[in-house]
Amino acid sequence: MRILLTNDDGIYAEGINSLAAVLVDDGHEVIVAAPDRERSAAGHSITINNPLRANDAKLNIEGLSSYKINGTPADCVKLGLEKIIDYKPDFIISGINDGPNLGHDVLYSGTVSAAMEGFMLGISSIAISLAVKDKRDFNQGARHIGKLLNDLYSISIEKKILLNINIPDIDYDKIKGIKFTVLGKSLYEDSYEERVDPSGNRYYWIAGRYNEENIDINSDVWAVKNGFISITPIKIDLTDLQLIGILKKITK
Amino acid sequence: MRILLTNDDGIYAEGINSLAAVLVDDGHEVIVAAPDRERSAAGHSITINNPLRANDAKLNIEGLSSYKINGTPADCVKLGLEKIIDYKPDFIISGINDGPNLGHDVLYSGTVSAAMEGFMLGISSIAISLAVKDKRDFNQGARHIGKLLNDLYSISIEKKILLNINIPDIDYDKIKGIKFTVLGKSLYEDSYEERVDPSGNRYYWIAGRYNEENIDINSDVWAVKNGFISITPIKIDLTDLQLIGILKKITK
Repeated sequence: MRILLTNDDGIYAEGINSLAAVLVDDGHEVIVAAPDRERSAAGHSITINNPLRANDAKLNIEGLSSYKINGTPADCVKLGLEKIIDYKPDFIISGINDGPNLGHDVLYSGTVSAAMEGFMLGISSIAISLAVKDKRDFNQGARHIGKLLNDLYSISIEKKILLNINIPDIDYDKIKGIKFTVLGKSLYEDSYEERVDPSGNRYYWIAGRYNEENIDINSDVWAVKNGFISITPIKIDLTDLQLIGILKKITK
Repeated sequence: MRILLTNDDGIYAEGINSLAAVLVDDGHEVIVAAPDRERSAAGHSITINNPLRANDAKLNIEGLSSYKINGTPADCVKLGLEKIIDYKPDFIISGINDGPNLGHDVLYSGTVSAAMEGFMLGISSIAISLAVKDKRDFNQGARHIGKLLNDLYSISIEKKILLNINIPDIDYDKIKGIKFTVLGKSLYEDSYEERVDPSGNRYYWIAGRYNEENIDINSDVWAVKNGFISITPIKIDLTDLQLIGILKKITK
């Protein structure tokens, strides 16, 4: 397969390098086009007011071409497809992200946004995240993806797909299997700590509280917590058709 | 009504000030909590690694409290709800944005992301954009919203709502009415111009091409182009339930 690889942790992050190494080793043709630095907070933004550059990133993986771009994950996908490669890849893969992207929190995610951008541009796309705890074993995550890819490819031939995959950070052979899931509720309940700086001025710092109550058994959150790889199919149409009916009824 | 107002063009932008003035004039209790500078490219990101500050913005509107925050639109909604006000507002309103937020391009929008954040936090929320052409008449846009708000309030009591509203930038009395719409296709087809800098290095600059072909008559794009205010109800669950069935069938 021909794969365009990106991420939001930056091109020198461990996750994308582990994945690139495994995919190249599996015989795929891989091009990396990823941000030159961490862009986790980028969400689904694109760079309009500044020029972009794509320079050789010199990743230490034989047979791999890699470009570091001074843009967001979505920029990398756009520029990669238009200027770096001159064919339509089989997949855009974004990751492996350092940390989970679960539930409605995917709306904040640069990793998932890059995959959405690929899908919007007509390519089957996959966001991959390691639900990092303490092992941080990206290599095992990459090996799971390598194994999954043929199955996903056969689906993608019939129907363009957009997937959000989260892998538990546990030993390779302790993974219980795959669950096809729905996006659960947000994992974090945010609150702000109020502090005072040395000059006596007030400031606030966000402090996320991990909320594990009422987890839906069909959700990505449940699957990862219980040792399964979670695969959630994503769509990009946000229209709430049901509410259109209600709106039409009440307002003339 | 009690309204928390934000935007992504920054607190001193014309759009949010026009809207605040009209809403205060209509007798609503309005608090502004908006970014201290333009954050259009922020997408749905939140600030985790830096402290936030909320300072008096001294907007020149009698009876209005306003706070400028060194964060993204989503930060402003979160911090506004938790630290600036101590009640649940009737609406979070984000805008009026300087330019349209139509079709799948809403995924890039800081304006829409702020409304999504409000909705995720349990408040009915509305993103408002002026499809700016040459008039840039935010005041007429604000007046339309003022008129609409009572109808929307009566709906929001029965069901929490999240709406994306786009107003054509034409004379107030030339607006043909309201259309309840679906998100259309992306308005822009992006391409990159390739250039060479004075040092002889190549760079790329994004150049959006406005695509007006095959516009769906039910879409927001069609409505605004044809002189209607477009109201699209939005949902935040991105799960593609249909594809779960297909995935389960093919992969074991």
